[in-house]
Amino acid sequence: MERRKIRVGITHGDINGVGYEVILKTFSNPDMLDLCTPLVYGSAKVATYHRKALGLPNITFTSINSVKEADPDKLNIINCTDDDVKVELSVPTEESGKAALDALKCAVEDYRKGLIDVIVTAPINKNCIQCDEFKFNGHTEFFEAELGEGHKSLMILVKDNLRMALATNHVPVAEISKELTPEVLKEKLLLFNTSLKKDFGIAAPKIAVFALNPHAGDNGLIGKEEIEVIKPVLEELKAENILCYGPFPADGFMGAGTYKHFDGVMAMYHDQGLAPFKVLAMDSGVNFTAGLPVVRTSPAHGTAYDITGKGIASEDSFREAVYMAIDIFRYRAMDREAGANPLRKQYYEKKDDSDKLKLDQIVDEDEL
Amino acid sequence: MERRKIRVGITHGDINGVGYEVILKTFSNPDMLDLCTPLVYGSAKVATYHRKALGLPNITFTSINSVKEADPDKLNIINCTDDDVKVELSVPTEESGKAALDALKCAVEDYRKGLIDVIVTAPINKNCIQCDEFKFNGHTEFFEAELGEGHKSLMILVKDNLRMALATNHVPVAEISKELTPEVLKEKLLLFNTSLKKDFGIAAPKIAVFALNPHAGDNGLIGKEEIEVIKPVLEELKAENILCYGPFPADGFMGAGTYKHFDGVMAMYHDQGLAPFKVLAMDSGVNFTAGLPVVRTSPAHGTAYDITGKGIASEDSFREAVYMAIDIFRYRAMDREAGANPLRKQYYEKKDDSDKLKLDQIVDEDEL
Repeated sequence: MERRKIRVGITHGDINGVGYEVILKTFSNPDMLDLCTPLVYGSAKVATYHRKALGLPNITFTSINSVKEADPDKLNIINCTDDDVKVELSVPTEESGKAALDALKCAVEDYRKGLIDVIVTAPINKNCIQCDEFKFNGHTEFFEAELGEGHKSLMILVKDNLRMALATNHVPVAEISKELTPEVLKEKLLLFNTSLKKDFGIAAPKIAVFALNPHAGDNGLIGKEEIEVIKPVLEELKAENILCYGPFPADGFMGAGTYKHFDGVMAMYHDQGLAPFKVLAMDSGVNFTAGLPVVRTSPAHGTAYDITGKGIASEDSFREAVYMAIDIFRYRAMDREAGANPLRKQYYEKKDDSDKLKLDQIVDEDEL
Repeated sequence: MERRKIRVGITHGDINGVGYEVILKTFSNPDMLDLCTPLVYGSAKVATYHRKALGLPNITFTSINSVKEADPDKLNIINCTDDDVKVELSVPTEESGKAALDALKCAVEDYRKGLIDVIVTAPINKNCIQCDEFKFNGHTEFFEAELGEGHKSLMILVKDNLRMALATNHVPVAEISKELTPEVLKEKLLLFNTSLKKDFGIAAPKIAVFALNPHAGDNGLIGKEEIEVIKPVLEELKAENILCYGPFPADGFMGAGTYKHFDGVMAMYHDQGLAPFKVLAMDSGVNFTAGLPVVRTSPAHGTAYDITGKGIASEDSFREAVYMAIDIFRYRAMDREAGANPLRKQYYEKKDDSDKLKLDQIVDEDEL
């Protein structure tokens, strides 16, 4: 397995939020530079502004214009937006939206060229980034479209052994039930199961599935989706040897700490999963976009305009996002390595009347 | 102010759940009997069964057939259901549903006669209690119908200074948006404001209001209810000097602990409020049905079939529910006392041309 330092592409996010603060603080620790080569898609000028505003003069970085100039042992900032962009702390502006998008576009381009290994995104303001080129509800949908290669994505929030996935994403509450078809739920559960195996190295993951409605619908008294959608999908997946259980009422499940007995928890929608998750892990939770060829993580928090520029933002969540991107990249490499050059299977073909040992056929692992 | 012991009516809830366990454990402490007279609507025979199953032989109670026989210094159990009802631990049965309903009916009857002061309910199984006489999604709706006297109720979950109210209750997710009209939201916020004043003794309560959609709708990208329903209602209430703020995205608000700055938090629907609330307060949270003439509280947990009969259920939440019912009963009495016999208002009537001091009119406080 290759052991060079992993190249972590980082998009600077909204320049008026806490993005640069958490990036600079994370890489002020030289140990981080032993672990990976950070490549920040952004603006050295904006980074300098934040460094000064935050009173962090000792944090150094290298200003470069393309990945090829990068110093593998430094914090590299790749200038990829207008040099005269104006920073207005805590305010969403058209300029900050454009700067955020420029960084995303450069990172995607370099990823396609194989110049970076993983992508960690600092938070954007989803409103001011909207334009003809960005008509998405968030990063997750953007990366699915740009680097998904036709794969569907799955949002997973992670804090230690709590891995919380969302069956529906940035969907208005009025449309959740419509979006949550058996096909969508099954697809998301399969994605989750695969991700827990390949990205987190869990051989036979146990997945808990939330109900959509309060009290798990109380046998149909409060909504029918549990009976008509969720339970049939769980039965179907159990028949395929996928270890999924439920549907559990979200509130009692989280309150009783039942999530500790599972490798993953599938929430049906945004607030159902994220509200309890953030109570448990606001400062150190990580958001991982599973299901795509690219490894993309981000901190669980947002732009945090209310504390921007005050120097009090915690970088824990961002640091964890970098760690997790690296871990997942390595797990995937191990998984590929373990699956490469499989031994020829030696088994009896039962349907074959001859009942002979077939040593002359190569069986593709994936087809088993 | 009257200082006699408060008579706490307690309904035994689902006889196959943890109801009797938390009731018996709570009143095993003699201090509780100094504070109030507990009157359990249930069955002494079932209580005996649980006491034996749990190995709690030292907990004593008095078996009576009506409130009039009650000993004010004992744990009284009023027999109000079939004596031969069968207990099947951890299983919802038709019999357990009927026993739960019998207790509720007796408690309501005695409350109407003025024989008990407050009602604390042990958890029911909402499914097996359904019958012609009980077609409700829960206790809250039952008490609204039975003892509401036309008033609307509001569910408030309480843990220390976190008071979380729900704008919609036991509603399927698909119907939340339809139920959340400006009229409903305004009504619930007014109820909440009044309850925080009269039931919790907070003179000028500050109320935080959640958004309905993820990211507070991101300015209309993810749902319009924030713009079309919530914000206009908040503006209207602010103009009436009610201190309400928002709409806040539920996940970040709870994760950052912002609730600590408010006297009350209004969630838009069940799981949005209860999932984060229970993470913070599963074992000691209390559910209070505000807005009704009757004071009714209950523990935040359910029947807990998974741990029934094991002796490991925590009675903290039930004990807090008893405390809170007593506190609220007293706050209301104080409020009534403070509002009784008001001084005549002495003020200038501005619309009156004469501009004279009106000392000859009694002004009703409620009309100001």
